[in-house]
Amino acid sequence: MFRKLLSLDEAKIMMAKSFQPKPLGTEHVSLLEACGRVLAENVISPINVPPFDRSTVDGYAVKAEDTFGAYEAKPVKLRLCGTVNVGEPPKIMLENGMAAGIATGAPLPKGADAVVMIENTERENDHILVYKSVVENENVMKAGTDIHKGENILKLGKHLTWKDLGILAALGFEKVRVYRKPKVAIISTGAEIVAPGQMLSPGKIYDINGYTLGAATARCGAIPMNFGVFPDNFQILNDILKKALETADVVITSGGVSVGPKDLIPKVLDSLGSPGVIVHGIAIKPGKPTTIALVDEKPVFALPGHPTSALLTFYLLVRPVLVRLAGRRADEILKTVKALTGVRVFSAKGRRTFVMVKLVREADGKFVAFPIATGESGAITTLAKADGFITVYENQQFVDAGEEVTVSLFSF
Amino acid sequence: MFRKLLSLDEAKIMMAKSFQPKPLGTEHVSLLEACGRVLAENVISPINVPPFDRSTVDGYAVKAEDTFGAYEAKPVKLRLCGTVNVGEPPKIMLENGMAAGIATGAPLPKGADAVVMIENTERENDHILVYKSVVENENVMKAGTDIHKGENILKLGKHLTWKDLGILAALGFEKVRVYRKPKVAIISTGAEIVAPGQMLSPGKIYDINGYTLGAATARCGAIPMNFGVFPDNFQILNDILKKALETADVVITSGGVSVGPKDLIPKVLDSLGSPGVIVHGIAIKPGKPTTIALVDEKPVFALPGHPTSALLTFYLLVRPVLVRLAGRRADEILKTVKALTGVRVFSAKGRRTFVMVKLVREADGKFVAFPIATGESGAITTLAKADGFITVYENQQFVDAGEEVTVSLFSF
Repeated sequence: MFRKLLSLDEAKIMMAKSFQPKPLGTEHVSLLEACGRVLAENVISPINVPPFDRSTVDGYAVKAEDTFGAYEAKPVKLRLCGTVNVGEPPKIMLENGMAAGIATGAPLPKGADAVVMIENTERENDHILVYKSVVENENVMKAGTDIHKGENILKLGKHLTWKDLGILAALGFEKVRVYRKPKVAIISTGAEIVAPGQMLSPGKIYDINGYTLGAATARCGAIPMNFGVFPDNFQILNDILKKALETADVVITSGGVSVGPKDLIPKVLDSLGSPGVIVHGIAIKPGKPTTIALVDEKPVFALPGHPTSALLTFYLLVRPVLVRLAGRRADEILKTVKALTGVRVFSAKGRRTFVMVKLVREADGKFVAFPIATGESGAITTLAKADGFITVYENQQFVDAGEEVTVSLFSF
Repeated sequence: MFRKLLSLDEAKIMMAKSFQPKPLGTEHVSLLEACGRVLAENVISPINVPPFDRSTVDGYAVKAEDTFGAYEAKPVKLRLCGTVNVGEPPKIMLENGMAAGIATGAPLPKGADAVVMIENTERENDHILVYKSVVENENVMKAGTDIHKGENILKLGKHLTWKDLGILAALGFEKVRVYRKPKVAIISTGAEIVAPGQMLSPGKIYDINGYTLGAATARCGAIPMNFGVFPDNFQILNDILKKALETADVVITSGGVSVGPKDLIPKVLDSLGSPGVIVHGIAIKPGKPTTIALVDEKPVFALPGHPTSALLTFYLLVRPVLVRLAGRRADEILKTVKALTGVRVFSAKGRRTFVMVKLVREADGKFVAFPIATGESGAITTLAKADGFITVYENQQFVDAGEEVTVSLFSF
């Protein structure tokens, strides 16, 4: 079976033709669980905030016109007709010549239209002396001036922050409708791979991808499900992929897709459902063996086994899909930063080349990007040192030292 | 009972004298749970990574000296003595004149010291022709070159990222020892406050602080426990604070600390244990009524009720304590950014003044900070618009328009 090696752009187009990621449904969660989730409804304010005209100071509720002309030397005398407490509906009806004691946050009584600060008054038995006039609405926060009843205060698709929780709480919502998180099955394959915690027999190494891809998946707003490590065996891989497809919305495998006699994953994927493999190999470095399949509408990403290659191809191809399935905006791709290259960076002939870099901040605040030796893309410390990667395009021979480049950040 | 209003610096010194926040113990968690946690042990590598000399290409394991002098026109002929598969301990002992098939990632057999890439060879029955010489260790990743056995690869106090999970997985750790998360009880008080989800009767407003302070607490690496809303009643507040102090490591209340007849919280705190209230009021704006107590070694922060004031005082006083209790570094305080002020910003006489600002990015990349009208610090939309705050010190009358200031970010 021969399939042409696609360019990254062709692979993305092929993917987009076969699969349009959309949110996977909604759920009702409590406010405390809603932080970081994506709003699946337009939030229309059911109330005014504040719900009533509210005093913003401690003092006396008055009719503003009664205080006109009052000043230090010539106070106005008003009759005290009661007190409005915080949290209580006012029973008072204020008439001309009257004042009512009021605390910060208490509702303005009927008839009142302003509040005189306590500092500008003096109590005299059943009366108060007002030493400073107020205008209408002075020291009053009118009902609905913060949030108006009927206002579309939070829009569908909003990525909820702690600030939004504050708004939802102010409106009295205890729960909110958000998009369901996509479930992502993560499967590590390879005869040499052993799960952490197990004995390491000669010739074996511990699984890394199950954890780095898991953490990256969680950062996309999805739920990683670490299925574990499986050997290169048709029946075993067939069974576990079938199980993964039944449970998860997206499946990621790593390892077992290089060109060689044991590359069973593409065969297994073709056998599991239609259309099966849609991208088999991409002209990128690293990541050439990356394979994408669609099995009965569910995407399966078969990434290379090297930790750096696996994470890079996750960022290029899996992340945009997960983000959209989670209901986030399509343009929520990678964070980038401009930097100057520290040395000349070469491309791999005919393949779009991604070079892991470490960023160093110069005294003038500019970033310099230094490539990290990736002779062995299996080295976990290589990956751990990388702040992100730079791209050398197919038509570029190299990026020269000191050239400005865009660094895509592994922004965690 | 009269207590002097302390400056912010004095309040911090008073706090530091009475209470030195330290991590609260440790727990063993799985790698998937460890992301974002703080390492409570030095991780010493128990193994070499890779654990064995490993081929980085598909090809043939050889003794390098056997290939010396080989080139396209004059290949060297070696006898094939077997194959080393990935994941299997090699049973072969290579002698001079011999070669063994080897796959990427497979362990080098004994006697071999280099690998010839398959592209530079030709198979001839039981022999191979080598068309390009290799030097010792060529195409081999030596045992321990990624991580060395005995190396202190991750240090105590490290805030674990996805990269560190990769390293821990590579070392075979299934679990890791991290600091326990501080538990923080959050109590909202006030006669006018109603929990979201409840009916809103006249004169009442919904609780905001339970949610914004909860989210801020979680961001400090602590566990928020929303205790709910309680009225200004000595016995009720006494009971709930007692319960909170039994359950949590830190208690935060909001509301009920303004100067007024209903300010019960300081009285309750003094009655609960020693030393009781240590800071009662701070010369800051907003946040003047902020009260700090220590009840039998547990800190209680009684913050003002206005959402903006509550969050600001949380950042100034609570956050540094929570971060240290969580085992993070003491210098992990607020993220800041430089900006020019959009307009002149005034201070409150004699009080350090914090002004909520929205940041706007100019075409040249510089930030301009615009104050958000905070006439009503109760407005949740005010808080929701703020990117952070700027500080006007006690000895400054104002910060002029266009002056460079440091903006402390509400960085979520």
